Amino acid sequence: MKKFSQASKEELGVLREELIAEFEKIKENPVKLDMSRGKPGEDQLELSEELITCLGPDEYMAGGIDCRNYGGLDGLPEMKKILADILHFKPQQIIVGGNSSLSMMFDSIASNMTHGVRQGKPWSKQGDIVFLCPVPGYDRHFAICEYFHIKMIPIPMNENGPDMDIVENLVSTNDKVKGIWCVPKYSNPEGIVYSDETVRRMASLKPAADDFRIYWDDAYTIHHLYGKTACILNILDECEKAGNPNMAYVFASFSKVSFSGASISCIASSESNAEYIKSRLKIQTIGPDKINQLRHVKFFKDANGVLAQMDKHAAILRPKFDLIHEVLRRELAPYGICRWTKPEGGYFISFYSEKGCAKKIVERCKQCALTLTEAGATYPYGNDTDDSNIRIAPSYPSLEELKKALHVFCLCVKLVSAEKYLDD
Amino acid sequence: MKKFSQASKEELGVLREELIAEFEKIKENPVKLDMSRGKPGEDQLELSEELITCLGPDEYMAGGIDCRNYGGLDGLPEMKKILADILHFKPQQIIVGGNSSLSMMFDSIASNMTHGVRQGKPWSKQGDIVFLCPVPGYDRHFAICEYFHIKMIPIPMNENGPDMDIVENLVSTNDKVKGIWCVPKYSNPEGIVYSDETVRRMASLKPAADDFRIYWDDAYTIHHLYGKTACILNILDECEKAGNPNMAYVFASFSKVSFSGASISCIASSESNAEYIKSRLKIQTIGPDKINQLRHVKFFKDANGVLAQMDKHAAILRPKFDLIHEVLRRELAPYGICRWTKPEGGYFISFYSEKGCAKKIVERCKQCALTLTEAGATYPYGNDTDDSNIRIAPSYPSLEELKKALHVFCLCVKLVSAEKYLDD
Repeated sequence: MKKFSQASKEELGVLREELIAEFEKIKENPVKLDMSRGKPGEDQLELSEELITCLGPDEYMAGGIDCRNYGGLDGLPEMKKILADILHFKPQQIIVGGNSSLSMMFDSIASNMTHGVRQGKPWSKQGDIVFLCPVPGYDRHFAICEYFHIKMIPIPMNENGPDMDIVENLVSTNDKVKGIWCVPKYSNPEGIVYSDETVRRMASLKPAADDFRIYWDDAYTIHHLYGKTACILNILDECEKAGNPNMAYVFASFSKVSFSGASISCIASSESNAEYIKSRLKIQTIGPDKINQLRHVKFFKDANGVLAQMDKHAAILRPKFDLIHEVLRRELAPYGICRWTKPEGGYFISFYSEKGCAKKIVERCKQCALTLTEAGATYPYGNDTDDSNIRIAPSYPSLEELKKALHVFCLCVKLVSAEKYLDD
Repeated sequence: MKKFSQASKEELGVLREELIAEFEKIKENPVKLDMSRGKPGEDQLELSEELITCLGPDEYMAGGIDCRNYGGLDGLPEMKKILADILHFKPQQIIVGGNSSLSMMFDSIASNMTHGVRQGKPWSKQGDIVFLCPVPGYDRHFAICEYFHIKMIPIPMNENGPDMDIVENLVSTNDKVKGIWCVPKYSNPEGIVYSDETVRRMASLKPAADDFRIYWDDAYTIHHLYGKTACILNILDECEKAGNPNMAYVFASFSKVSFSGASISCIASSESNAEYIKSRLKIQTIGPDKINQLRHVKFFKDANGVLAQMDKHAAILRPKFDLIHEVLRRELAPYGICRWTKPEGGYFISFYSEKGCAKKIVERCKQCALTLTEAGATYPYGNDTDDSNIRIAPSYPSLEELKKALHVFCLCVKLVSAEKYLDD
C-alpha cells in the first residue's frame, strides 16, 4: 500500500471496506482496556512491595520525632534530604506533602487566588487573570485553571520547550499574566526536555506582574526510559541568579516511583517562599503523614536507592515504548498519515493524526472498548484546533494487552484517515 | 486556709511570700512539659501498634480495587462502611480524606470562599461575612476564619450547647452570617454534649442566607471517658427532616483513634453535597491514600473494633482526668478562686480562674517550663474578655508528669490569685 495522499479513491474505498469489516469483528470481541491515564502497571507497583511491610512494630521514631503523633509541617528531615538530593535543592527549600502533588499545585493556586502571592493582591481580585499553557500539555493543569476561572493562552512547544519569544513577550507586557505551567523534563505528553537556554530564559523573565509565578511540575524528573536521566538546569538556582529568587514553585512526587496512590509529594521553592507556605500549612493541617514518609525513607534509604528503583521502572516501561514505535512504524508509517514523538523518558507518546481525525479515532477505539485519553484533552478547554493530537499512555497494560490495543488503534487510525481522504 | 475573698491582706501577703519562694525553687528545677495541645500519649499510640505491620506483602487489594494505584476519590468502600456505622450515616454520605480533618474543614471553607456554596455567589464576593463561634471553642476553627478574613461573633455556651436563642436570631436576620462552628459532643474545651433540643433547633434554623452552613466538627464522637459514649441526635437526619437537607457538613477523624499524624479523616453531608464535593476533588487530587485506609480496615475490621479501641483509650485517659479533678479539688477548691468542667469525654478540662488571671497564670507556668494552651486561645481573636479561661490538655503527659505539672499549675493559680486579691 502506498501513501494515502497518493492513493486513488478506488484504492482507498477498497481499503476502507476491508478495515470496516475488521473493525466490526473487533467490536464484537472488544479489547476492554483503559489507556487514558499514565497509570503504572502492576509489575511497576510490585517493585515497591516491601514498602508495605518494611517498618517493624517498633519503628516509628525518626530522629527525635514520633512519626505517629501530630506535628512536623514540612516533613521528616530524612525524607526532605532524599528529595533534596534527587532534585538538587536544599532541604530547607522543600516541603513534603501527602500522596498527591496535584493537590499541592491546586492548593498553591487556591492560596494565590484568595490571599495573593506573598500577601499581594489576591488573584481573584485582579479581574481576568491569565496562565500560559505550553501545548500540548497536561489536562490536569488546565482543569485547575478552568476551575478557578483563570484564562489560558496556549503556547506552542518546540524541541527545546515552550516558544520563549512568545512567553517573554506576553509575560513582560501583560500584567494579567500570572503564571505558566511547565513540565520541564519529559513533558506530558511530548516528552520534551527543556534546553539550558529555555530554563535560563524562563528564570530571567521580567514579568509585568510582580505576582507572576512559574509552576514547574517536575513530575518526570528521574523517569528516564533509556540509559540515564536527562540533566536540566536547576530552576531555583537560575531564578536566584537572575534576580527572581521567589518566582518558581517546583512540584514533584513519588507517584510513579513507589505507589501511585500512596506515595509522597513535595513543593520546593526559595527558602523564603517555603516559610510563607508553612505559615498557611500551620492553619490548614496537623501535618503530613510521617509514618508513610518513614516507610519511604526505610525502603529507599537514600537518593541512590530511589535512582536504582527508577532503572527498574525503565526496564519495565522501555519494551512498551519500543513496541509502540515498532508497531506504529510498521503499521502506520508507510501511509504517511501520522507522526509521533520518541521520548527518552516520561509516560507518554504524543501522536499526531491527520487534521480533523483525532476525535474520530478516539471514538472508534472506544467502540472497541479501548479507552484513550480524550482527544483535545492535551489542550486548554479541550480545544485542539487541528483535532490531531492523541496522548498514548502505554504504562498500564501488559505487553500482550498493549499489542492488542495497538492493533485496534492502528486499525482505527487507518480507517478514520481513509475516510478523511475519501471525503476530501 | 480560707477562701481568698474572706482572707485579710496580711494573710494573703504571707501566703504570697510562701508561694513565691516555692515558685522560685521550681523555676530552677523546671518540669519541662508541653500540655498545650490535645496530643495522645505514647501509651495511647501503642494501642495501634499493629497498624504499622498488619498488612502483608500481598495485601493491597480491596474488593476489586488495587489500593496502590491511582483512583477512588471518596475512599475505600470498606473504610466508608466503618465510618458510616460509627457516625450513623449512609456510606454515600461520606468522603474519606487524608490524615487531617482540619484540612477538610479548611478546604471546605476555601471552596465556599472562591466558588460559593453549591455554585452560589462566592463568599469572598459578599463583603464582610460572619461565622458564629460558640465560646470557649477550638482555636484552630477560629484560626481558619481569621485566615480567610471571616468575622467571628462569639456565642455563649450553656450546658446544652450554644445559646440557641442568640444563634436563631443572628442566623435568621443577618444574611452575612454564613456559618457556625460546632463541636457537638464533648466540645473543645468545655466537654459539653449538645442536647436533643439544641440539635433540633440547629437543624431547623431558617437562615437569612441560603448559603449558610453548619460546620459540625464531630471530633470526639466516640471519645468517652466514663462508661458509654453519649448519644446525640443525627444532625444530617435532623436537617433532612427540617427541610434543610444540605445545611450541615460533618467532620470526623481517627486522629485520636489510631495514629494522630497518620490516620484517616472524613467529611459527611447529604448525598447531593457529597457529589458536589467530589466534583471539586476530581480537579484537586488523584485520590486519598487507600493503602492507609486498607491498614485501618484490616486493623479495626469493623465499627465494633473501633469502639473496643475507644474503651482502651478511655481506660488510659480516665485516670488522668480523675487526677486533675482530685488535685484541683484538694489544692484549689478550698480557696474559692476557680471552677472547672468535669467532662464525660473528649480531651480537655476547661478551667476558669478569677477574672484577669488567666494570662498571668499561663505566663507563670511557662516560667517553670510548663507550656499550657495560650490564654485566650479558646476565643475568637484570642480575646477572652474575662481573661479567665485556660484549656487543660491532660492526654500527653504520663500520670507522674501530670502530677508534677498540676503541682506547678496549682501553685501558679494560687500565686496569681493571691496577687490579684492583694492588688484589689
